[in-house]
Amino acid sequence: MRVLGLIRVLSTNDAELLNRHGRLLDEFFGDPELTVVSRCIEGHPDGLWNSAGERKALPKIVRLGQEMARGDGATALLVSCVADPGVPELRETVEVPVIGAGSASAATALALGQSVGALSIVPGVLPPISNVLGKHLVGWEVPVGVKTTLDLMSKGGKERFVEAGERLKGQAAEVILLACTGFSTVRIAPFLEKRLGLPVVDPVISAGLAAYYAMVGNR
Amino acid sequence: MRVLGLIRVLSTNDAELLNRHGRLLDEFFGDPELTVVSRCIEGHPDGLWNSAGERKALPKIVRLGQEMARGDGATALLVSCVADPGVPELRETVEVPVIGAGSASAATALALGQSVGALSIVPGVLPPISNVLGKHLVGWEVPVGVKTTLDLMSKGGKERFVEAGERLKGQAAEVILLACTGFSTVRIAPFLEKRLGLPVVDPVISAGLAAYYAMVGNR
Repeated sequence: MRVLGLIRVLSTNDAELLNRHGRLLDEFFGDPELTVVSRCIEGHPDGLWNSAGERKALPKIVRLGQEMARGDGATALLVSCVADPGVPELRETVEVPVIGAGSASAATALALGQSVGALSIVPGVLPPISNVLGKHLVGWEVPVGVKTTLDLMSKGGKERFVEAGERLKGQAAEVILLACTGFSTVRIAPFLEKRLGLPVVDPVISAGLAAYYAMVGNR
Repeated sequence: MRVLGLIRVLSTNDAELLNRHGRLLDEFFGDPELTVVSRCIEGHPDGLWNSAGERKALPKIVRLGQEMARGDGATALLVSCVADPGVPELRETVEVPVIGAGSASAATALALGQSVGALSIVPGVLPPISNVLGKHLVGWEVPVGVKTTLDLMSKGGKERFVEAGERLKGQAAEVILLACTGFSTVRIAPFLEKRLGLPVVDPVISAGLAAYYAMVGNR
């Protein structure tokens, strides 16, 4: 049995919401030997949106990861947030592989092309992503007027997203990286890929693949 | 049906040898909807070992990739060589995603850790790998006295490999990248991972995962 411990940084008692990323991975892999266990940290009902929140969350993420490696028998951990909060610290303290959605999705983008443009809902470039992409990061765009991933659910919000993707194409991006796991929650990648005509990297699914490699690649 | 077109740069009429990398992927994915079709270029019975050979092979690789995208209905192409020969050129000429074993396996290594050490059988750092890894490439080691992947089959050859991996650990590598697809042919990654106690990235399997993402991630 393979247990992937998925750490949500959005605090919720709603089991459906808690398990949404895990369910995406379950459906994608369709591997009866894989179990995805999702747990969340406490005290962050709006998720992590700035570095102050990240700092506060850090010890909770590390503690939760340790519990999942021990209590849930997780054979790999996935921190389902593109800011990779707690990933370096967890790698120091647990024995199992630790994957961050930011670094892992950026890495997947590099497997698909040389020039990567990132779409986000925060304007500042996230270090785990720029750290992996280096000179291959050609642009970072935020859709005009889109404040939360909920805005994506409207037709107008989706079009703002396509426009931001077109701006990245204008910057010679060959691959589009979705730099927010909320974009996985609403599964906008297939829509964008069709509209932009470029490969679009979904952060949760691509990071799940890296975790799968870490668990199964050498078995 | 998903068809992955796998391009071998080792010319052979031996179907078992031709299909060896494809079979690794078939076994790894166990996806009945995935078909891996392997074909090789002509005139390179010893594979590609230097830039002169790569230059000569380049137009053959591009032609073969075009044929596979058309004739075999490949929905993604994988060039099964860590030097990524023909990958940039194929990306210019075919509509389907093109994955190179070098850039894709290097990308997988970046998803697993910050500091990557490469094990190869050629002493010179390969550009597709250093291009992806940048500052994260902390070392490039060649096992002493190992000339071909056949030498790995002997017990002594395997030990030389462990020693080279230990040298990379001494250079603070957190992840080991196997920078030759011949290492996939002999499936040395599980052995090395156990002996070194670090994640070891198999180039064919990790590149196959990236190709799988490109084919299926947004379906």
